[in-house]
Amino acid sequence: MLEFEDVIYVDNNATTPVDPRVKEEILPYLGEKYGNPNSMHQKGREARAPIDEARERVASLLNSRSEEIIFTSSATESNNHAIKGTACSKKQQGKHIITTKIEHKSVKEPINYLKKQGYKTTYLDVDKDGYIDLEELKDSVRDDTIFVSIMLANNEIGTIEPVKEAAQIIPDQTIFHTDAAQVPGKLEIDVDKLGIDLLTINGHKMYGPKGVGALYINEKTEIDPLLHGGGQELGRRSGTENVPYIVGLGKAAEVAEEEQKKDKEKLTKFQQQVIEEITQEVEKTKLNGPKEPRLPGNVNISFKGVEGEALVLRLDGRGISASTGSACASEQLEASYVLKEIGLKPEHAHSSLRIGFSRFNTQEDVDNLIKELKEVVKQLRSISAL
Amino acid sequence: MLEFEDVIYVDNNATTPVDPRVKEEILPYLGEKYGNPNSMHQKGREARAPIDEARERVASLLNSRSEEIIFTSSATESNNHAIKGTACSKKQQGKHIITTKIEHKSVKEPINYLKKQGYKTTYLDVDKDGYIDLEELKDSVRDDTIFVSIMLANNEIGTIEPVKEAAQIIPDQTIFHTDAAQVPGKLEIDVDKLGIDLLTINGHKMYGPKGVGALYINEKTEIDPLLHGGGQELGRRSGTENVPYIVGLGKAAEVAEEEQKKDKEKLTKFQQQVIEEITQEVEKTKLNGPKEPRLPGNVNISFKGVEGEALVLRLDGRGISASTGSACASEQLEASYVLKEIGLKPEHAHSSLRIGFSRFNTQEDVDNLIKELKEVVKQLRSISAL
Repeated sequence: MLEFEDVIYVDNNATTPVDPRVKEEILPYLGEKYGNPNSMHQKGREARAPIDEARERVASLLNSRSEEIIFTSSATESNNHAIKGTACSKKQQGKHIITTKIEHKSVKEPINYLKKQGYKTTYLDVDKDGYIDLEELKDSVRDDTIFVSIMLANNEIGTIEPVKEAAQIIPDQTIFHTDAAQVPGKLEIDVDKLGIDLLTINGHKMYGPKGVGALYINEKTEIDPLLHGGGQELGRRSGTENVPYIVGLGKAAEVAEEEQKKDKEKLTKFQQQVIEEITQEVEKTKLNGPKEPRLPGNVNISFKGVEGEALVLRLDGRGISASTGSACASEQLEASYVLKEIGLKPEHAHSSLRIGFSRFNTQEDVDNLIKELKEVVKQLRSISAL
Repeated sequence: MLEFEDVIYVDNNATTPVDPRVKEEILPYLGEKYGNPNSMHQKGREARAPIDEARERVASLLNSRSEEIIFTSSATESNNHAIKGTACSKKQQGKHIITTKIEHKSVKEPINYLKKQGYKTTYLDVDKDGYIDLEELKDSVRDDTIFVSIMLANNEIGTIEPVKEAAQIIPDQTIFHTDAAQVPGKLEIDVDKLGIDLLTINGHKMYGPKGVGALYINEKTEIDPLLHGGGQELGRRSGTENVPYIVGLGKAAEVAEEEQKKDKEKLTKFQQQVIEEITQEVEKTKLNGPKEPRLPGNVNISFKGVEGEALVLRLDGRGISASTGSACASEQLEASYVLKEIGLKPEHAHSSLRIGFSRFNTQEDVDNLIKELKEVVKQLRSISAL
């Protein structure tokens, strides 16, 4: 547990706290080590070496070469870069893009934007547990398919997509991207074994800060930059390097690699306890997404007749931070498109609660969450019965 | 002076230290206030309010409305957004872009990229002091001109461009952008008085952190987003908000506004002292850029027969951090294109030293810098004479 924590925070698929070990490594770069890493004097040099080290740490986490990692400002930037960078560099080859219907908006929206610019798009269906159909993927690939994006694990319902198997189907001349934002520290990521060309990770889903991400670009893959300018990151992403956060992401990657096995075990245990106790002991509930295998720590359950928003607010009143749907969409009133795509009716989609555990949650958190959640559901149902 | 400082740092046009007051406001958001501002629970709400406050602080600095400010990851992103966002939204209207020959690379390179995509470009010449010619601008504007970008102050030679006068010439249907990255805290910025549509600022040139910037978008100006996704920043810039740095940029803006008059006075005094003592007391020197008015704090002098790089390294050896050319280009061996454009021969461009003072420099720093610089130049010239 974090010493400063004053709530039971179980909304870690929206954002994680910064690991104190990460914060500690960031601080000197907001203080005395403020140099521009592109400067040739002492202040510049002392900011250059830690970027190299951070790159090696991220590369180690993903089993890539360090030259294959570029630092970005977010998963959103990494995804936009992957998509638009490919669209621009490959437009002579074709204009067809394949993705799934349950991607994060930072994949979905740039592809929708390209569609308006005249690109052709195929959105793969998913089944009731959120899995794509590899046969449909096979049938969708065309001669002019330049890009495929399939997420590694869904942020709302925890489905782990068959990315490795998809890579076998996708032809060499098509660039294959996966958004792995939710995965570091929970499951192993090996870019070689996955057989992908581009992979996105995100600082603030892996106990690093908000405002930093990375994009793995296979050494054989050529895509246009999204940010042109001073030529940083070997010309692939311009802008003065965000040294403090890059150092932070590096540390977060190192901790994720070291503690992945332990964290996975704990997150899976907490997740399975909530799934079992709630779906078995509370009536008219439904687990959204697969039971197992599932992204460790993620739970998504619909409570018939209960408004998800009311659930979140009542839990909040009891000191528990959880969510309904994804944080990006939570200001909007529409129900989760992910839940719609797995076949939920709007009223069931609106009655969902998402829980995401972190390495800082304790057994006590889980027990309290289950207890409070049962009470709140009961309370809300009794009001609704009136 | 900063309590942790161990060198005389006079490379503040490359990057500034983070003001301790800014760092102090950042810290809680790397700690207990880690929520995603798009979440509806307590942790989310406590991260939302400070973003609104930061936006008001930046708006106040620029005399804009707060809804006209979006936060980005850097000046590079702001400039790419301004340029590519306009190019995409206005491509039916025309494909002609005007800029100057001495823009920062984060303006120059995205425009060069668009040129390769079929856009037409006009690069305005500058005179020996770096000023554009308003008559040339007038003659360059065409019916299909969709975008003009003219920097407010040059990062290498301190020229303050006649942006306000240019705005009178540029037609309403043409979007007018200015890169003001170097200006906050040194000169007043008033978007109304300037009459511009888009304006870029940068955290780490105004005592904020590296990895955050802002783009002013006039309420009447419509440009496409560069980052599509969750719809943050009113749909104009997606990606989970970098709360710590946004708060930091807000504080940096507040301090810049409060201390601008005092800082300008001090920076101008230091600047003029160096210009006068060095150009008068060291032979065969030449000030690059105008003497007055000039971006406060910036000095750029060529020392005939002396390699700029050798100068920087020798000064570094004596605990003084300065630069030759801009930091972005300093890894490259080519001479500064800005110095070439104001008419310097390559050997003079290669012999230049750039100095940039900050609010943390002291009179003692300036006196020591002048003393050491004179000695180093003498030393290098005596070697070269051998």
